[in-house]
Amino acid sequence: MKQLVVGVDIGGTNSVYGLVDREGNMYGEGVIPTKKYPDFDQYLEELYMGIQNLLKQVDFEYEFMGVGIGAPNGNYYNGTIEYAANLAWSGIVPFVDKFKRYYANVPIIITNDANAAAIGEMVYGAARGMKDFIVVTLGTGLGSGFVANGQLIYGHDSFAGELGHVVIEGGERQCGCGRKGCLETYVSATGIKRTAFKLLADHLEDSEFRNIAFNDLTAEMITKAALNGDPLAIEAYEYTGNILGKALADAVTITSPEAIILFGGLAKAGKYIFEPTKRSMENNILRNFQNKIKILPSGIDGKNAAVLGASALVWQQLEK
Amino acid sequence: MKQLVVGVDIGGTNSVYGLVDREGNMYGEGVIPTKKYPDFDQYLEELYMGIQNLLKQVDFEYEFMGVGIGAPNGNYYNGTIEYAANLAWSGIVPFVDKFKRYYANVPIIITNDANAAAIGEMVYGAARGMKDFIVVTLGTGLGSGFVANGQLIYGHDSFAGELGHVVIEGGERQCGCGRKGCLETYVSATGIKRTAFKLLADHLEDSEFRNIAFNDLTAEMITKAALNGDPLAIEAYEYTGNILGKALADAVTITSPEAIILFGGLAKAGKYIFEPTKRSMENNILRNFQNKIKILPSGIDGKNAAVLGASALVWQQLEK
Repeated sequence: MKQLVVGVDIGGTNSVYGLVDREGNMYGEGVIPTKKYPDFDQYLEELYMGIQNLLKQVDFEYEFMGVGIGAPNGNYYNGTIEYAANLAWSGIVPFVDKFKRYYANVPIIITNDANAAAIGEMVYGAARGMKDFIVVTLGTGLGSGFVANGQLIYGHDSFAGELGHVVIEGGERQCGCGRKGCLETYVSATGIKRTAFKLLADHLEDSEFRNIAFNDLTAEMITKAALNGDPLAIEAYEYTGNILGKALADAVTITSPEAIILFGGLAKAGKYIFEPTKRSMENNILRNFQNKIKILPSGIDGKNAAVLGASALVWQQLEK
Repeated sequence: MKQLVVGVDIGGTNSVYGLVDREGNMYGEGVIPTKKYPDFDQYLEELYMGIQNLLKQVDFEYEFMGVGIGAPNGNYYNGTIEYAANLAWSGIVPFVDKFKRYYANVPIIITNDANAAAIGEMVYGAARGMKDFIVVTLGTGLGSGFVANGQLIYGHDSFAGELGHVVIEGGERQCGCGRKGCLETYVSATGIKRTAFKLLADHLEDSEFRNIAFNDLTAEMITKAALNGDPLAIEAYEYTGNILGKALADAVTITSPEAIILFGGLAKAGKYIFEPTKRSMENNILRNFQNKIKILPSGIDGKNAAVLGASALVWQQLEK
């Protein structure tokens, strides 16, 4: 009998959920506007009903295996969402405990978005068969999931994998975490915007971005401009990749991964981000690791990547 | 019946080996002058005879469980020693394969010194009961062993844990690896010597070190001077701890350890190294991790630490 799991991707605006089989095929998908449910119990009730509704529409016999959740500040050990700045539920939300009232007999697993992406790559994506790799998620911020010995590194408190907050050499940009020079102030959708504005300040040449306010500029616009050959946009990616490559050269000395997978928005710039990143990593890496470590695009990145990643948590747990 | 393993610590000058039980008690120890055996087969023959000699002297019934080896550039996956600069055996030495001719029916496990120290701390020392921790060995260079999910991180090629070669902010010192600014050019026995000479260059005040040539100065002398209250030696430790603390603040974001254990020579300076390291780590760390991560002295450091660490490889393997 086919086995199905539910993957839930919780974002500040929307929560997307879907039914997924072991091969990563999706059988229906639903959306809840997270923001509209400041009451967490009501949110869960809505999520439960949405899932039940999807299950009802399945037209073959199946076995229901569990629920995997990717959420900002999801704590794997405690099954909680803790102090997530972009969610309406304040403090510590006992997600798994409460959801067990609806699904008592199957695993319910929560972790943060980047960790879910890493497990997703391992179960369905570019890291299938790998035991040691890193996933770097390039969204609004920079997230990361480190896998060693075939297991995700959660650390003693479930907060491991904060590569976005290593401090880069000479970094001066203010970070939302209260410190300065964190990697994600340079390498992320927000970071590349800041870089574009730095380049506008440093250079004299004209650019389409000279007519755009900071709050109107998006990383997508920079990506599009780079793909169209815009020199400033290409330089912004060069600058970004150069910094990312250095940070990866350091990260690699710790876990020695087989591959590093770039996931999310900025990775869509293709060679404009992959080439400078690879070049900079190789130029800065310890000799032991030279020309050994692949930098790969995501194998699940697309419309349903986050849901797939979340669903993969269950398969990985069952296979332990 | 009591179970015994052999631990072997291979150094450039000497190899020390000993019989160890599960609790870390030693039952005899022997030494081979590594340097005198440029022929690896002769070295192994000598090591085998030494071990057999120790076993003969055991005056109780025992079961022989295996051999654990800590060696520079020991490769855990391949059972080899690879291109070790300080050993006379060149290229790739198939240590485990060759030693199996003598001990066919028990596990023979090799890894590098820092990894052996980490497993030693986990089995007998300060990390007993921990699943996520880092051991930093402060010898001639800086080695490290990262443990996550109760397993040592070897990485895809057994070269993980090279924390000594992360590049520090503003680091300009030449490193033996061919690059500049590696952590171990500051934080190690050699590093603190370089720091003492930098301070002699920067400052005017008198110091006992003004009469000592670079090649005559040792880290032990700096430690002794610090413990005697010498301001320059204390400042050298302050400088060293400050840099180590920053590097640990970054490393912690990746694996989120419960504790960091400082092992080896420089750790003997006690508060002179622990206090600035802790202060600097806390001042530079991401808020999530503040006041959560212990910095501890080794629980096995002493005369037999390296042999204990090597022997622990076998116990850990048997318990997997």
